Amino acid sequence: MLSFVVRDQKLKAENRPPPALPPGWALIRVRLAGICNTDVEILRGYHAFRGTPGHEFVGEVMDLAGVSPKIRNLWLGKRVAGEINVVCSAYGYKPVCEFCKRGLRTHCARRTVLGIIAHDGAFAEYLALPVENLHVVPPNVSDEQAVFIEPLAAACQILDQLDIAKCYGAAVLGDGKLAQLIAMVLHAARLRVTLYGKHANKLALARRAGIATKKVQGDANDLKRVKQSYRLVVEATGSPTGLALAQQMTEPRGTLLLKSTFHGAAPVETWPIVVKEITVVGSRCGPFAEAILLLRSGKVDPTPLISCSFPLSDAPRAMSHAQQPGVMKVLLKNEAEQAARPTGNKVKDG
Amino acid sequence: MLSFVVRDQKLKAENRPPPALPPGWALIRVRLAGICNTDVEILRGYHAFRGTPGHEFVGEVMDLAGVSPKIRNLWLGKRVAGEINVVCSAYGYKPVCEFCKRGLRTHCARRTVLGIIAHDGAFAEYLALPVENLHVVPPNVSDEQAVFIEPLAAACQILDQLDIAKCYGAAVLGDGKLAQLIAMVLHAARLRVTLYGKHANKLALARRAGIATKKVQGDANDLKRVKQSYRLVVEATGSPTGLALAQQMTEPRGTLLLKSTFHGAAPVETWPIVVKEITVVGSRCGPFAEAILLLRSGKVDPTPLISCSFPLSDAPRAMSHAQQPGVMKVLLKNEAEQAARPTGNKVKDG
Repeated sequence: MLSFVVRDQKLKAENRPPPALPPGWALIRVRLAGICNTDVEILRGYHAFRGTPGHEFVGEVMDLAGVSPKIRNLWLGKRVAGEINVVCSAYGYKPVCEFCKRGLRTHCARRTVLGIIAHDGAFAEYLALPVENLHVVPPNVSDEQAVFIEPLAAACQILDQLDIAKCYGAAVLGDGKLAQLIAMVLHAARLRVTLYGKHANKLALARRAGIATKKVQGDANDLKRVKQSYRLVVEATGSPTGLALAQQMTEPRGTLLLKSTFHGAAPVETWPIVVKEITVVGSRCGPFAEAILLLRSGKVDPTPLISCSFPLSDAPRAMSHAQQPGVMKVLLKNEAEQAARPTGNKVKDG
Repeated sequence: MLSFVVRDQKLKAENRPPPALPPGWALIRVRLAGICNTDVEILRGYHAFRGTPGHEFVGEVMDLAGVSPKIRNLWLGKRVAGEINVVCSAYGYKPVCEFCKRGLRTHCARRTVLGIIAHDGAFAEYLALPVENLHVVPPNVSDEQAVFIEPLAAACQILDQLDIAKCYGAAVLGDGKLAQLIAMVLHAARLRVTLYGKHANKLALARRAGIATKKVQGDANDLKRVKQSYRLVVEATGSPTGLALAQQMTEPRGTLLLKSTFHGAAPVETWPIVVKEITVVGSRCGPFAEAILLLRSGKVDPTPLISCSFPLSDAPRAMSHAQQPGVMKVLLKNEAEQAARPTGNKVKDG
C-alpha cells in the first residue's frame, strides 16, 4: 500500500504491506485524512516520530482480527472515525496502568497515539486501530464533515472540563482551524463567544458561522489595545506569544484554557496567574460521541474550514500547501479507495 | 512617627504624622513586622510602589474613627493581625465593584493593598486599616507566631481552592519561607508532603517540622534527575525556573499550584500542560481565621523559620540581611512600642 513516512523533516512515499492486526483490531481503508498543525510540528521533528503521520481521518472497516463473527459482521464495511489514543488493554498489557484503571484512557501510561506516538497514522491507504477506538459515522454526516470528528472532539473536551454555564462569556484567541472549531462548539453550547484573530479572511469565516469576532495585530501591542476581560479565555493561537494576552484577558478567578500544543518556549511572566488566581486548564483529546452528535444534528458544520484537498499521492505538496498563510484545513483523498468504490456509495453507514 | 518609604530602590527613614483614619478604620501600633520576598521585589521597583512597604504584622489597636462606642470598646487595645486587601466598601465607594458583589473581596477592582498597592504598610510605627480587616490574636499565640498569620493564611488558601483529599500526595517545590509554611499547612491537613529544595539547612528545618524532604540542585539537570510525579505540585521556589520541573512532576490530570509572585519572564514550554491536561491554579491571599486556628491549636508553629529580628530603625539593614543566602524570616521590632509597654503585657488578648 502507499504510505508516507517522516524522514529528515520531509514526507517520503513508501510502499508497505498493510498493517498487521493484533486481536481485537480493525483494518481501515482511509477515505479522507486531514492535515493538522500537529502534523506540521511532527514534520519539524517534534515528538521524535518517524512513522506515518495523520490522526484525523474517516475510513471504512475492511477487516478485523480475533473478534466473534457477530462483532465482525457488525463492523465490516462500516464508515468510521477513530479515537487516536491506543491504550494498555488494546495491547494485552496486564495489569492495565494506573491511569486506565482510573478511567483516564487518554492518559494511559503505555499509550501509542495514531500518527503521533509509535503508531502509523492516516497519511496512508490503510491504518489499524483497536475496534474499541472506532465510532460509526451516521449516514447524514459526509466524509468531509466526518474527517473533522477528531479535532471537533478535542474542542468538545472543553465542555467536559468546565461548567460553561458559569462562564457567561468567553474569548477564543486565534483564528486557525482549532480555534474556529472551539468557537463553533462553545457557540453551539449557547455561550457568548468572541473570536480574536489577526486574519481578516479567517475572521470572516467565523462570522459566517454566527460567531462575533475582533481583530488584533498578533503582537505585543495587543496587550495595550485589548481592554476586555472574560471569565473564560481559550488560548488557541498555536503560538507561544498568545499566552501573555490570554492571561491579561482572563478576569480574576477566571479560567484560561490552553488548547494548542505548539513546541518552543516563550518568555512568560506567571505572576498574573497568581495575583488574579487564574485557573489554567490544559485540554487535549475529547469525546467523539459528542462531536458526532454536533455534526449529525447540524449544530456544527466545519466544512467551510476546508481550503482544498489533494490526492494522497500528493501528500508532500499538500503538507507544504497547508503551511501557506491563509490556508485552513487541507485534506488528503485516498484515490485508490475512490477508484475502488463501485457506482453509488455502497459503504454501510451507521 | 518613624516610617520607611521606598525611594530609588532603597528604604529611607521619614518622620511623618500617623496615618489619618477614615470612618470605620483603626489606627494600629505595630509590634512586629515580617519581611517577605514581595518586599524585596517592591524594593527592586516592581508594583511601582512608592510608599511604606510591609504587609505582615502584629499590632495593637490604638484608635478608631467613626464607630459606635460599643465597637470602639470592643477593639481598643486589642492585639490584632490584619487582612491586607482594602476593598471598595472601606473607602465608601457605591456601588461596590463586581468582584466585591460576588464575594471575591481579595480581587476588589478598586482595592489597595497594605504595603503593596497605594496603601502604606507595616515598616512604620503605625498603620491604618479598616476594622473589618482586623482579626484578634488569641492569648496563647505569641507576637512571633502572630506575625506569620498573613503568609500562613496565604498557605491555607490552597485548602480552600483544592480538594486535597483527592490528592493522596503532594510535592512542594522550594525551601523558602512560603514553601515551608505551605508544607506545614498541607502536613497539618494530613496530606503526605515532600518538600524539594536545594539548601541543606532549610531542608533540615522542614524535617524538624515532620516534613519529608528531597534535595535538588535547582538547575536544569533536575529535569533528568527527578523521576517522581504527584497529583499535586506546589511551585513555591520564588524563581521562574522552577516551573518546568513543576510541570514535569505533575502527573496527567494533576494540579500544579502556583504560589510565588516573582517578577521576570522565564522561557516556558506550555505543551506539557496541554498534553497532560494539567490544571494550573494561581493562589494568593487566604483565610486569616484558618491560619489563626492552626496557630492557636498548635498544629503549626512557624517560629523556627525566624532567622533574626532588628529594631524598626534598622529596617534598611534588616532588608539587606533578609536577602542574604540562607536567611529565612527577618522581623522588625517596633522599639518605641516596646519602650511604651508597661511592665507586664497589658495588651488585651482575644
